[in-house]
Amino acid sequence: MDRYSEPGFISDIKSKYNLNLVGDDCAVLPKDPETDMVVTADMLVEDVDFRLSWTAPYLLGRKALSVSLSDIAAMGAAPVWAMLSIAAPENLWKSDFLDQFYEGWHSRAREFGVALIGGDTSRSPDKLAIDSIVFGEAPKGKALLRSGARPGDLIYVTGTLGGAAGGLKLLQSGQAAAREQDRNVKQLLQKQLDPTPQINIANYLLHNSLASSAIDISDGFSTDVFHICEKSEVGCTIDADQLPVNPGLLEFSTAEEALDLALNGGEDFELIFTIPPAREKLLGLEDLTKVGVITRSDQGRKIVKDGDISDLVPSGFSHF
Amino acid sequence: MDRYSEPGFISDIKSKYNLNLVGDDCAVLPKDPETDMVVTADMLVEDVDFRLSWTAPYLLGRKALSVSLSDIAAMGAAPVWAMLSIAAPENLWKSDFLDQFYEGWHSRAREFGVALIGGDTSRSPDKLAIDSIVFGEAPKGKALLRSGARPGDLIYVTGTLGGAAGGLKLLQSGQAAAREQDRNVKQLLQKQLDPTPQINIANYLLHNSLASSAIDISDGFSTDVFHICEKSEVGCTIDADQLPVNPGLLEFSTAEEALDLALNGGEDFELIFTIPPAREKLLGLEDLTKVGVITRSDQGRKIVKDGDISDLVPSGFSHF
Repeated sequence: MDRYSEPGFISDIKSKYNLNLVGDDCAVLPKDPETDMVVTADMLVEDVDFRLSWTAPYLLGRKALSVSLSDIAAMGAAPVWAMLSIAAPENLWKSDFLDQFYEGWHSRAREFGVALIGGDTSRSPDKLAIDSIVFGEAPKGKALLRSGARPGDLIYVTGTLGGAAGGLKLLQSGQAAAREQDRNVKQLLQKQLDPTPQINIANYLLHNSLASSAIDISDGFSTDVFHICEKSEVGCTIDADQLPVNPGLLEFSTAEEALDLALNGGEDFELIFTIPPAREKLLGLEDLTKVGVITRSDQGRKIVKDGDISDLVPSGFSHF
Repeated sequence: MDRYSEPGFISDIKSKYNLNLVGDDCAVLPKDPETDMVVTADMLVEDVDFRLSWTAPYLLGRKALSVSLSDIAAMGAAPVWAMLSIAAPENLWKSDFLDQFYEGWHSRAREFGVALIGGDTSRSPDKLAIDSIVFGEAPKGKALLRSGARPGDLIYVTGTLGGAAGGLKLLQSGQAAAREQDRNVKQLLQKQLDPTPQINIANYLLHNSLASSAIDISDGFSTDVFHICEKSEVGCTIDADQLPVNPGLLEFSTAEEALDLALNGGEDFELIFTIPPAREKLLGLEDLTKVGVITRSDQGRKIVKDGDISDLVPSGFSHF
């Protein structure tokens, strides 16, 4: 692994300092005899993670909270508290940008019962940077981890895939503004600019002991399912024909391009979870799709498409 | 208060969203029946809060943790966990900057028994930004607040004042590099670049029920003692002649300039605390100085110098 890539650096730092609490979507900390606290931080930087010309401050505030709520969802936890650290250049302080940002943030916070407890504000020389921190709670020892998948478990995803990446492509190509009344454009932009964290489904899975592992799709399905395989030390076989490709993508892309976005596009903030086959019949939820099965590690990580098996290549977004 | 200043904005946001958990050095959260959790976040931005040409990455790592530990100290709490979010430009990722930064961070973490549990790393377009988050614990209901000072309480500070601001002046004037072997220069630079959080004294004060209120000196004595007066709804009378002016300042400044730095210079990360007079005799600690007394609110906030009383003006560092 490249020492100077983010994952390489983190893995290096982790082994050097023996950081065994670091590594899942959230850190899991002991709270009281019945409860674990889970906590996550997400740094969003202007012109790296978002562009001010592509979004509205209200939506950016919602997304800053949503990305961290999605990490809480990946643990099956219930969000409780949040902190928000913002470094903003002077022109934003002098406009109503931050008002609208906070209004968006709080609109999302209200939906999920999250209380703002602190954070920091600072001036920045030119770019906006946001650190979004969320605390959640889960029954002790029950938080969903990446490491719990076992051979034979079925692999599910929530919602549809590739929409956020499709929305990003529309923004990058400059097509978005002219076509924002188009129903598909609107839906793809919403996936990119105002994603929904899957807290409710995640809480249902945890409280009914349905998931053996879970992760949220931030980097892209192929990369995130790999994270489960690595942490669980298992293989997987994915059925490409079952992937719930966002139907809006087909207005702008060939079926092959759309599948590529669904497999490798990031930021859908849907969940991937695994479930032991004996529990599958209890899964009384809509909007879930079975996309594959966990295998023994020596079977490798595979994808089947039109009857052909090939290696699944983690090609999602890398932060570097 | 200026709506577009940071304090004005925060006060506006707090009243708008009814954020009563926000406002002290740390948020205080219920953890278990015996324990409160306190948590703080500090955002440090390149060329606003530090300059890379003035410090070393190892020292910056230590300071990033120390500023948050100082907030934990202000609550009398014991630090336990930390998170670190970093947005760094590509040239820093490609050097050993972050290695040295983490090494410094961990050297400070080891001193105070803090475990790194998470955070985030991101690329940034040009400037380095760091969000430092620390969690501490205090016996339930015992965390030291800004709001506990009562008329008649005595006002103490730890250590000496003005040194960090003096060090900053040396860096700004370009005198630091040429004179770093000078004992006074070294000491002032250390106060600015490698401050010590007053965790041990703070824990002693809490566990012996000695402090009625506390705050750390980040903005400057005059401003921070004002924060106690505002939150406690009291007045104060400060004896300027008692302020423990950092003796190294006198090599570079007149006595008047040195007193100004001690009164209004930020970032000493010493503590101001108040103590009921009946408890004062139990204060078996060195390196503490009595600098004034808490008065009734209608007595105002005053400073006495050479026998003259005048209004104490909060003239410390404002973040904007």
